Amino acid sequence: MQTSFTAANPAFEQRVKDSFSMQQAMKTIGATIRNVQPGKVSIGMPFSDELTQQHGFIHGGIVATLLDSACGYAAFSLMPENAAVLTIEFKINLLLPAKGDWFEAVGRVKKPGRNISVSEGELYAYEGENKKLVASMVGTMMSVYDREGIEH
Amino acid sequence: MQTSFTAANPAFEQRVKDSFSMQQAMKTIGATIRNVQPGKVSIGMPFSDELTQQHGFIHGGIVATLLDSACGYAAFSLMPENAAVLTIEFKINLLLPAKGDWFEAVGRVKKPGRNISVSEGELYAYEGENKKLVASMVGTMMSVYDREGIEH
Amino acid sequence: MQTSFTAANPAFEQRVKDSFSMQQAMKTIGATIRNVQPGKVSIGMPFSDELTQQHGFIHGGIVATLLDSACGYAAFSLMPENAAVLTIEFKINLLLPAKGDWFEAVGRVKKPGRNISVSEGELYAYEGENKKLVASMVGTMMSVYDREGIEH
Amino acid sequence: MQTSFTAANPAFEQRVKDSFSMQQAMKTIGATIRNVQPGKVSIGMPFSDELTQQHGFIHGGIVATLLDSACGYAAFSLMPENAAVLTIEFKINLLLPAKGDWFEAVGRVKKPGRNISVSEGELYAYEGENKKLVASMVGTMMSVYDREGIEH
Repeated sequence: MQTSFTAANPAFEQRVKDSFSMQQAMKTIGATIRNVQPGKVSIGMPFSDELTQQHGFIHGGIVATLLDSACGYAAFSLMPENAAVLTIEFKINLLLPAKGDWFEAVGRVKKPGRNISVSEGELYAYEGENKKLVASMVGTMMSVYDREGIEH
Repeated sequence: MQTSFTAANPAFEQRVKDSFSMQQAMKTIGATIRNVQPGKVSIGMPFSDELTQQHGFIHGGIVATLLDSACGYAAFSLMPENAAVLTIEFKINLLLPAKGDWFEAVGRVKKPGRNISVSEGELYAYEGENKKLVASMVGTMMSVYDREGIEH
Repeated sequence: MQTSFTAANPAFEQRVKDSFSMQQAMKTIGATIRNVQPGKVSIGMPFSDELTQQHGFIHGGIVATLLDSACGYAAFSLMPENAAVLTIEFKINLLLPAKGDWFEAVGRVKKPGRNISVSEGELYAYEGENKKLVASMVGTMMSVYDREGIEH
Repeated sequence: MQTSFTAANPAFEQRVKDSFSMQQAMKTIGATIRNVQPGKVSIGMPFSDELTQQHGFIHGGIVATLLDSACGYAAFSLMPENAAVLTIEFKINLLLPAKGDWFEAVGRVKKPGRNISVSEGELYAYEGENKKLVASMVGTMMSVYDREGIEH
């Protein structure tokens, strides 16, 4: 498996951050981008009662929201300048209840491609000194070139 | 395939609604429960700019949030009184950009079980007269009996 | 959801059958094509001890083999003449042990597309008078146009 | 993420090999078990024309067969003596055409659990000096205790 990548677009970091800042959903859930490398993106989010399910854990769909953005932007970081990224599908495994003080989603490209990329993500919960893997994702992303309504 | 079910708990509808009302994430995204039948639950949500990704569509993770709740509660509606429901894993396919005036997630039990249930969900976008299938989900839910920290 | 389709290629049935007959894996597991409609394909297979896992049921990967072919050919049946089909990814849920006298995999297109199609499949086990749903699949298929090494 | 494990059953290696030898499907596709460690199992298989799809690559379902066994036995290697293993569900990503001289599926436990374990797998193709990652899997396995018809 390829574990380090070179970005096609030298401005990849700014480009990912610019696009992230347009995701209103990230603001709504209190998520911020932490780190952008070629093929790897991490996103942080503090715990909030407003994002919980019935047992007081972070809702599985909010877990998916963090992981989808991390995995999508990991793929996007390797794409050329005229490409936009769309998620085709993803699978989430909820490994432990998502409770903690804050969370970090790390997305990594597993297999880049001109049209189809596959990313994997892991969500970690931090509570005091503890770090736990609470969820994982694998997703398929599509590079969209010059399609109407999908701006880069 | 089994397409109609009998609820083990006669109070299934109230029980689903009570649990749904404890999901703070549903309030945050503006989702309301529309219909509860044995093995089938639907949830509605109006479009909101605050839930979008970078192209102005509803974020794939918010799509997952709606579908996970609909599918999880579909499974929960068939569970006995002393069971809680936890999602183990799910897969989402994003079939079309999630744009529209409002959205409805419909979750249905595909295969109920004492410990493991499988549900399927569909997300529809409504825009004027149009109704479009924009995403689908399949998920695996676990019945949790009398586990500490997981209240029914 | 769209439930009936028109094939772009009037010779779709022969084309699916010709391609199926080139799948040596189908011969090896004793599978035959039963029915081809636009967007829907079914494949049958008798039980064989040679395809079992350690408990004597049909191996989950053989279940996947049947479902992948049924879902892939369902997508292929709607593709134009110059397209080949490749599976990008699939998810299988094993709902009951795959035991019975024979099995039928039914694949249906959920969402067709020029480049990406999504299919769903169900595997039924037949034993005497009984028919049971034992597995389900959702998969993403890609139309490949004029790519070297991938003949139509 | 936990990356090394201790087997609950000191006889884990023999137990995995004994169960593997009962999988008739492994013999049929020419697969052999290569290595068993606590939480990690690898399986090899030479290329065979009899396992191909219509383009001459190994069929995606045969890829799934190798990965499911590798991932399932990785989970099984950590289970106590009175447990059997059943796959609940898995997702496969087909990253490159599965062509090569021989193949190795490596399954690793991502998250062990008393009832539910999650494993990840990778399939490598070897051709001359080259080694390529051609597919990946994530799957959910259930420990079954003392259930009728499911022998350990």
